[in-house]
Amino acid sequence: MSKFRFHISMSLDGYVAGPNMSEDDPLGEGGPQLHEWMVPLRAFKELQGQDADGEVNASTPIVEGMFQNVGATIMGRRMFGPASGPWGSDPWRGWWGEDPPYHHPVFVLTHHAREPLEMEGGTTFHFVTDGIEATLERAREAARGRDVLLLGGADVAQQYLAAGLIDELDLSIVPVLLGAGGRLFENIGGARLALEQVRAVEAPGVTHIKYGVRAG
Amino acid sequence: MSKFRFHISMSLDGYVAGPNMSEDDPLGEGGPQLHEWMVPLRAFKELQGQDADGEVNASTPIVEGMFQNVGATIMGRRMFGPASGPWGSDPWRGWWGEDPPYHHPVFVLTHHAREPLEMEGGTTFHFVTDGIEATLERAREAARGRDVLLLGGADVAQQYLAAGLIDELDLSIVPVLLGAGGRLFENIGGARLALEQVRAVEAPGVTHIKYGVRAG
Repeated sequence: MSKFRFHISMSLDGYVAGPNMSEDDPLGEGGPQLHEWMVPLRAFKELQGQDADGEVNASTPIVEGMFQNVGATIMGRRMFGPASGPWGSDPWRGWWGEDPPYHHPVFVLTHHAREPLEMEGGTTFHFVTDGIEATLERAREAARGRDVLLLGGADVAQQYLAAGLIDELDLSIVPVLLGAGGRLFENIGGARLALEQVRAVEAPGVTHIKYGVRAG
Repeated sequence: MSKFRFHISMSLDGYVAGPNMSEDDPLGEGGPQLHEWMVPLRAFKELQGQDADGEVNASTPIVEGMFQNVGATIMGRRMFGPASGPWGSDPWRGWWGEDPPYHHPVFVLTHHAREPLEMEGGTTFHFVTDGIEATLERAREAARGRDVLLLGGADVAQQYLAAGLIDELDLSIVPVLLGAGGRLFENIGGARLALEQVRAVEAPGVTHIKYGVRAG
């Protein structure tokens, strides 16, 4: 069955972004540490269309599995790209380059309507302004029976958690204390979520734990 | 070298006790879920002097290792026992029965001075009123070159983390969201702690991650 899956890297103290996030610094102070485990991996470089050599380690199947059987991705507007600013000649083409690593429809939650943006390699960004449930519906349709992947950021994830809509949570827990920033498990209201640990993988500098989620 | 180690079970959202903790409910609402992974284990029953059968699984070496090479334990006063109340004929003998599972000196951080309490099986509770550093010093001396183990609760652990005194952190991360209660990584001030992931163990219903800690 098609699942709604959520992958994110989290500090040991529960933050998915550091303090003082802004348009030009969506990960916040210290936030890039959350993704350091991924950077040296060949699987990660390949996602970005780079041919460079890279490491193969216990995180490799995690990165490779992230997009397996995924037919559509959902992300928040800041994760797509800055609203404005000195980010190249056309800032609204997002952070992800001309050939983004998705190769399927990507639904961007935003307050500002906009025409779809077709990139190279099969990625089209769709900008959805009518909330998380409508976005998920559209993504499910576009995924045609495959999974839908949620990639963040914190506020979008909190909304989906609060609504009890996520089926599977894959957290990469990083040995870092950020001390402030965007906490994943906050503002999820009285949402009663029952978790079941599906698997845990020890990898260099990170532990990947996958949970099944049921709204209880 | 003698290490100062800290073991605790934590919910995925970072709580080591649930909301509405009190003298008669030191784990708070939902808090007992944090220890459910441990309850069926033979190794845990043996610690409590029970001969009963029990499970052996990937958590077994974690429980067995908890007290390995430990010469003294530190805990907060609530973890020792209630200050007063209907807890048996002598409430001040603590939660741990007449033959506590420690079999070595246990140092209880408290605001109320009291003579040491000698129990069966080699456990003596010492009540220390002059703060976390003096308590650690006394525990180190009593441990005679072996490790010192810190077991909680949250406020005592926060104080030791804030002071940068802990060498090793072993967290048992439980697939539960408590939503409120005592968070481990709070009130640790601007403490700059550098963590290094030492090992992660997948076990039924829990993931055990050990970190080396350096005050940075």
